[in-house]
Amino acid sequence: MAHKPVPEILTRQIVATSRLLRIEAVDLRFSNGVERQFERMASSGRGAVMIVPFIDDETLMLVREYAAGLHNYQLGFPKGLIDPGETPEEAANRELKEEIGFGAKQLIPLKSVTMAPQFFAATMHIFIARDLYPESLPGDEPEPLEQVPWLLSKADALLEQEDFTEARSIAALLMTLRELNK
Amino acid sequence: MAHKPVPEILTRQIVATSRLLRIEAVDLRFSNGVERQFERMASSGRGAVMIVPFIDDETLMLVREYAAGLHNYQLGFPKGLIDPGETPEEAANRELKEEIGFGAKQLIPLKSVTMAPQFFAATMHIFIARDLYPESLPGDEPEPLEQVPWLLSKADALLEQEDFTEARSIAALLMTLRELNK
Repeated sequence: MAHKPVPEILTRQIVATSRLLRIEAVDLRFSNGVERQFERMASSGRGAVMIVPFIDDETLMLVREYAAGLHNYQLGFPKGLIDPGETPEEAANRELKEEIGFGAKQLIPLKSVTMAPQFFAATMHIFIARDLYPESLPGDEPEPLEQVPWLLSKADALLEQEDFTEARSIAALLMTLRELNK
Repeated sequence: MAHKPVPEILTRQIVATSRLLRIEAVDLRFSNGVERQFERMASSGRGAVMIVPFIDDETLMLVREYAAGLHNYQLGFPKGLIDPGETPEEAANRELKEEIGFGAKQLIPLKSVTMAPQFFAATMHIFIARDLYPESLPGDEPEPLEQVPWLLSKADALLEQEDFTEARSIAALLMTLRELNK
């Protein structure tokens, strides 16, 4: 399919900066001539990973972690940013060791997903992890993460959990089920 | 299950502001005594909706829209913010009329999801829309959205599309398939 050309970027300017984040205003001209200013988060250039770890053939390991945006604890799959110099697979293995105390001999890529791509450039690479072995690395969390094993056969109950809401974790769970049924 | 108490908020301060966005720094004390500063996007208090519209029993309608964060066009389900005074259902119907030129006689709630809840408070309510009827409202987009009908039986091909990446659209598609198979 022939797509429209992307809008022309007329100007870009960082309009707000905090310790961790930068907001960029972008003036755009669309192919129909309409001009509009958008705001987006300036990209760190670092992607992220999320891992669906099988601790045995029937059981996933989730983590429960404080989420400052919602100011409550949320259940989801281990995840984190890719460090400079790491491949996504290396980042996935490191995050597993930091968050649940396992490495993985097998990482199966599911899909790379985005989040609110009107605001963010970041891509998250989602993996299934199998053939785990115990190995821990210290993480940078302010408190240990609660580890929550979950039977794959109870996926419906997980989807109904009121603290399992993150769209990327839901997508990861359902893509995993789909992959297993192939 | 007895959960940990949420961290105590010691101070909150808006540290960066743009035309549309505000970044808040929050000093927290976790229940183990560890103190840490987090940054999060200050909430607008407005939720959002996403709609999986069935234009007939077998066909979904998607839209392709410019995404400034990625600076490309992305395929996904119609979505938008809830306006002040609207219910999620009213917002869903308005967005359908603005983005694909249909209203819905039937809106079936699927799940309310979050996005990076460590940074955002926003919740998105996902609906299946059925029994559509033609009705348009003017939207605020800089250009008309491309409308893309997609057969539900071709869901695998949709998941493989390189411009279908948004985790909330993926979650909405897979929850819809799951709902239909119940």
